[in-house]
Amino acid sequence: MTTMIEAIQQIGREARQAARAMMRATSAQKAQALHVMADALSSQRATLKAANQRDVEAAKIRSLDNALLDRLTLSDRSIDLMIEGLRQIAAMPDPVGELTATKIRPNGMQVAQMRVPLGVIGIIYESRPNVTIDAAALCLKSGNAAILRGGSEALHSNLALGKVVSHGLMAAGLPESAVQVIDTPDRAAVGALITMTEFVDVIIPRGGKSLIKRLSEEARVPMIKHLDGNCHVYIDEFADLSMAVDIAFNAKTYRYGVCGAMETLLIHQAVAPTFLPEIARALIAHGVELRGCARTQALVPQALLATDEDWATEYLGPILAIRVVDTMSEAIAHIERWGSGHTESIVTSHIIQAQQFQREVDSSSVYVNLPTCFADGFEYGLGAEIGISTNRLHARGPVGLEGLTTLKWVLQGHGQTRG
Amino acid sequence: MTTMIEAIQQIGREARQAARAMMRATSAQKAQALHVMADALSSQRATLKAANQRDVEAAKIRSLDNALLDRLTLSDRSIDLMIEGLRQIAAMPDPVGELTATKIRPNGMQVAQMRVPLGVIGIIYESRPNVTIDAAALCLKSGNAAILRGGSEALHSNLALGKVVSHGLMAAGLPESAVQVIDTPDRAAVGALITMTEFVDVIIPRGGKSLIKRLSEEARVPMIKHLDGNCHVYIDEFADLSMAVDIAFNAKTYRYGVCGAMETLLIHQAVAPTFLPEIARALIAHGVELRGCARTQALVPQALLATDEDWATEYLGPILAIRVVDTMSEAIAHIERWGSGHTESIVTSHIIQAQQFQREVDSSSVYVNLPTCFADGFEYGLGAEIGISTNRLHARGPVGLEGLTTLKWVLQGHGQTRG
Repeated sequence: MTTMIEAIQQIGREARQAARAMMRATSAQKAQALHVMADALSSQRATLKAANQRDVEAAKIRSLDNALLDRLTLSDRSIDLMIEGLRQIAAMPDPVGELTATKIRPNGMQVAQMRVPLGVIGIIYESRPNVTIDAAALCLKSGNAAILRGGSEALHSNLALGKVVSHGLMAAGLPESAVQVIDTPDRAAVGALITMTEFVDVIIPRGGKSLIKRLSEEARVPMIKHLDGNCHVYIDEFADLSMAVDIAFNAKTYRYGVCGAMETLLIHQAVAPTFLPEIARALIAHGVELRGCARTQALVPQALLATDEDWATEYLGPILAIRVVDTMSEAIAHIERWGSGHTESIVTSHIIQAQQFQREVDSSSVYVNLPTCFADGFEYGLGAEIGISTNRLHARGPVGLEGLTTLKWVLQGHGQTRG
Repeated sequence: MTTMIEAIQQIGREARQAARAMMRATSAQKAQALHVMADALSSQRATLKAANQRDVEAAKIRSLDNALLDRLTLSDRSIDLMIEGLRQIAAMPDPVGELTATKIRPNGMQVAQMRVPLGVIGIIYESRPNVTIDAAALCLKSGNAAILRGGSEALHSNLALGKVVSHGLMAAGLPESAVQVIDTPDRAAVGALITMTEFVDVIIPRGGKSLIKRLSEEARVPMIKHLDGNCHVYIDEFADLSMAVDIAFNAKTYRYGVCGAMETLLIHQAVAPTFLPEIARALIAHGVELRGCARTQALVPQALLATDEDWATEYLGPILAIRVVDTMSEAIAHIERWGSGHTESIVTSHIIQAQQFQREVDSSSVYVNLPTCFADGFEYGLGAEIGISTNRLHARGPVGLEGLTTLKWVLQGHGQTRG
């Protein structure tokens, strides 16, 4: 036990050392490392798939479910996607070193902020081995060192992918320990990782709510995270109802399992009699189960009666809660009471309603006339995404390269003194 | 005990409620509240000084030291400064609602970030009652609710100042509980405040290192803070030595007690024989005790031998540690090893040296040709300062109104759907 914790601390110590070198890495070195990684993924397909096969077979013996097997499997298609992702990240502008907010003070000194890496980033994830490459690439591009801890069921795959990453780092003259894959399946390794504040600057967990909840209770290192994506679409009294049907249908059915999927639909009472039967027909035809308030049931007899449990739940599946409200304020109050601060949307053609909703709803993303399933860093133009944050401090909403950096103040003078 | 914790939780619950109203407060309301507070401070001087007198007398009976009595005392001068501060904050631009990074995506949807309040801010401070007004004003201006917990020795003063704040809030139609002063001297109240993550979004501690260290060990709510200001000035081989003397002297002697005071002076060996005797003469004449490495002692016989303890110490007094180094890299390595990530400066006329130092030193502020005592929000042009942060996430360096806000994503479309 002590030995394992010492091993994790040694990983932390090396990561901190590597972070100092990564802070100084040039854009050209980082791009080279990413391209070499892409080339190696391509040339080492057979080795990678063999390592992955060991994980997949072990998972089959343990009778893990098909969804997990699907996430665990490295196919040619998933390897191609990783290669494409690496090339895209290599081509993105380097966020490090950018100077902003430059101004000259009355005494002639120049004050500015410089974008710099965060330092050491710990990523904790579950069964998808491609996260090893995606996370390594984003941390590398933003000049950080990374410690990766994937699911134990993907250990052989992750170690093989980790070798590809090492290869890229070394080819570019960067420290191999800038990206380290924790090679023990022992769960106590995670406990060590999330508490060693001297070596780790931030933890980004990717996984289910129960994992993240447990981690946040134990962590001493700050986390960039979200727990729930209990997202709402509010159909306003002044909505274009044809647009409202498209938006609500897309928000629910684009993909049931994404965190931006709509889980509760709120409808102004003035439009409910027209809108609700129409959207209900479309959703029921698509296999979505409806659970609504009494007023919903009056208009849609197929809907079950919703309970408080329904307002609180992120279904991540083909179920939708529906509530008819008297006013927009009641919709906002419902979101305040039950929402998770992730993503909410109003459908309205009334500019004042739109402004008020967007100002008053206290979520990391607030939309007008768009489905909540747009909650994604690529859709926002970030070029890449390491996760979505509902934190209030630092990065909020989809987190791209910029969220993996911080600002330091840089001042220049010519001998001005104070006082 | 339970009752006290319930009382603090009730304060938290009310603050959360008030934060929702504050988020919607107009700039005019916030300015009005600040001006009414300033007027009330002016008209209620006698009442405030009487309340303060109770605290001062109690402190005298407990034989608290003169420095503390000085910080505790509300004079006409300190009341005038609070009034001036309130008027200045009232006149500053409102940070809330600002839209940045607006762009149109290929599908026509508009993506932007809106600056919004953080929510509920807990401020924990020591004996200075003026912090009650300064902190309340900054939280109010940035649209947050505040919970204030000052030193128990200043309780009567803080409660009297809290009434002035309430008066301003109510006059502007804002909730009285947007700023609450904790009225129990019980230390367990602090423990409750820093752990109730459901009601408090961030804690800003202002005080000595031991207080802040203890708080960070127990806190579950994120903190914006710094522990040490162990600041370094490095005199480069290419320094203008006359400028270097002015900068080093000012960095040490401007005020010994500020967190930006220089605590260690690093000197390139090539300039040490010329520079070191001169700065040593000036500092010794000013009553500063010098502690140096062996090479320092060879040039300045009065210097005591410095130990590792000296490199690690933030003296906050008339003592300076001095080390002669062979290269700039050695200076940077010393800062990495012993520094606190607060503020460091290089004196050099060589642009490449300046760039390298500014890029490689991993502190919240890095200067060229300026004394470290400029570490202050007013000097940076922030208009006000709630504290200085050495955190890597969120606000780093001097924290003004912007550090008390966060960004949310706001998207507008016209019915675009995904997939």
